[in-house]
Amino acid sequence: MIGAGQLARMTQQAAIALGVELRVLAESAGDSAARVVADARLGDYRDLADLRAFAQGCDAITFDHEHVPTEHIAALAADGHAVHPGAQALVHAQDKAVMRERLTAIGAPCPAWRRIAAAAEVEEFAAEHGWPVVLKAVRGGYDGRGVWVCRSGEEAAEVLASGVPLMAEALVPFERELAVLVARSPHGQGVSYPVVETVQKDGICVEVLAPAPGLDPERAAVAQGIALKIATELGVTGLLAVEMFETSSGLVVNELAMRPHNSGHWTIDGARTSQFEQHVRAVLDLPLGSPALAAPVVVMANLLGGDDPDVFSRYEHVMAHDPGIKIHFYGKDVRPGRKIGHVTALGTDLDEVRARARHAAAYLADGVYT
Amino acid sequence: MIGAGQLARMTQQAAIALGVELRVLAESAGDSAARVVADARLGDYRDLADLRAFAQGCDAITFDHEHVPTEHIAALAADGHAVHPGAQALVHAQDKAVMRERLTAIGAPCPAWRRIAAAAEVEEFAAEHGWPVVLKAVRGGYDGRGVWVCRSGEEAAEVLASGVPLMAEALVPFERELAVLVARSPHGQGVSYPVVETVQKDGICVEVLAPAPGLDPERAAVAQGIALKIATELGVTGLLAVEMFETSSGLVVNELAMRPHNSGHWTIDGARTSQFEQHVRAVLDLPLGSPALAAPVVVMANLLGGDDPDVFSRYEHVMAHDPGIKIHFYGKDVRPGRKIGHVTALGTDLDEVRARARHAAAYLADGVYT
Repeated sequence: MIGAGQLARMTQQAAIALGVELRVLAESAGDSAARVVADARLGDYRDLADLRAFAQGCDAITFDHEHVPTEHIAALAADGHAVHPGAQALVHAQDKAVMRERLTAIGAPCPAWRRIAAAAEVEEFAAEHGWPVVLKAVRGGYDGRGVWVCRSGEEAAEVLASGVPLMAEALVPFERELAVLVARSPHGQGVSYPVVETVQKDGICVEVLAPAPGLDPERAAVAQGIALKIATELGVTGLLAVEMFETSSGLVVNELAMRPHNSGHWTIDGARTSQFEQHVRAVLDLPLGSPALAAPVVVMANLLGGDDPDVFSRYEHVMAHDPGIKIHFYGKDVRPGRKIGHVTALGTDLDEVRARARHAAAYLADGVYT
Repeated sequence: MIGAGQLARMTQQAAIALGVELRVLAESAGDSAARVVADARLGDYRDLADLRAFAQGCDAITFDHEHVPTEHIAALAADGHAVHPGAQALVHAQDKAVMRERLTAIGAPCPAWRRIAAAAEVEEFAAEHGWPVVLKAVRGGYDGRGVWVCRSGEEAAEVLASGVPLMAEALVPFERELAVLVARSPHGQGVSYPVVETVQKDGICVEVLAPAPGLDPERAAVAQGIALKIATELGVTGLLAVEMFETSSGLVVNELAMRPHNSGHWTIDGARTSQFEQHVRAVLDLPLGSPALAAPVVVMANLLGGDDPDVFSRYEHVMAHDPGIKIHFYGKDVRPGRKIGHVTALGTDLDEVRARARHAAAYLADGVYT
């Protein structure tokens, strides 16, 4: 696995069970996953020579993030390595304009969008679709970074001044955000987890509710169908997370990720097969596992670093208060707002389960009761 | 954790989630757990200097097996290390005669027993309790090794000829074998998992049924009470597995183990808190986790090595046949009869769940349908 963040770290738990020896390419020995695997190599994921040395002897290669240059991924495949997802699929998770072109071509629901090179084009786009206009960096954004909601030509001009390649999207008046996590294996098997609701704060996911409360079953099936179709049409191998907006008139695709995804962390404790095991199975072209829920209601809450770096000392309260809460720490240094872990609660009543997850997350992050 | 077998390997999965960095003392770099931790040290668990070097910098020390000399464990504690379980508790899992003396003293149900030094003492014991007489090595036996069922003085004399310190026990006419897994923390909190039935073949556990089918709830409570009392009276910190015989007249304690135990592997997928997480919590003196079942019926089947060392190639059939089966491999070389992994099935119908676990285990081990 190229990259050694928390996704690689949690993949290690699944790899241990399957008897698969996980090698990670880390930037430093202190990386989240480098702390928990026997075979952590140091190197630069932007350097083809480092990638080639890393790949030597691996049965399959996959990713903890989307930042490996597309051409290097293609080069590894040309060397004869099994790379999942491949460059031709992954580019859709790396380049938002390529993604929009392709989704539009296959008929997946998208907001109005356009590549933007000059302020005049934003004005033109706004004349057609109205203000505000959402400007997005074509490459490199995440967790709300690289996204600007512009209410005027002046605001857009400021963003354009940065020189980053941009695209415009119409702001979608959504009711809530959903996510569909699917897996697809090289031999073409596909599986979808239940559709979840994701709750964001300041552009960062703070909670995931599984399954999405009150979602119309037909709409849920449509959402899963869209995600599976995208996986098939784009030739995704491994996991694909499709973030969607639910609007009064239906679903709109927001973003794609081709790796284990924050919206799927609930599956570790809340589904028969965790997304990390599913990803390992898929990239090794093994039959996929059951995505069934382990409880009627599962809520995941992210732990965002607060001001106090000592989170471990707060275990006592949280564990004593709720012996059923599942805690996951990523072994990362605490910085305010940084994702340092997550908690998962399972049960039957949404309000109760959600309150448990929120309480644990808030207390672990800040030592504050909620 | 001293020792780097499969118990340490599975402990690593729990440690990753808790953000606890696990160090293991391995005999070789190829040991089951040494393959999956970042901090594997090589050394001899019988050598106090190796143990002292290993312990340096650890917050707590625990064990993957019971073979560390009792006096070395006491020495580590005298050095100021937090060692769980401590030497005074662990000796009861190392020395069967010490265990019987203590259990007898606290009123836990035991078979008739006696330390044995000469053939005449076996004859005398048999005159009182009848043949056959079970002779057990006082130290070092496991998985049926170190246990001899003798039907005559001649058979007993053969065993005595080996010179191993022995004890005699009356053969218990049991209906089935049960196991109770409890955890106890240094601050005195105790928790019991549901009582399970263990199924042995040739002295090796092959299946665990959770909860024990058809067990009278009052008897289950008695069994849990016995295990918790033993944990308290012996000052156990960490896990304690109490193997029991169920007879027509009640329960009899067979063996003790003070570490994660084969009879608790089902908890990884089948309980809210795995035994490995529970052990980590207990030895770090954190509040204990919920032992609740994750499904009405959970069956664990051990994977015993067959003649074909290539188990991985049989994943395809097993995973495709049963997408809900949970597979755990220990990263060990296959040898006939060796425990190389286990599978767990969850569901509601015992016969169906048991058939699924058996099928998967048999196919993974031998490539044979059952």
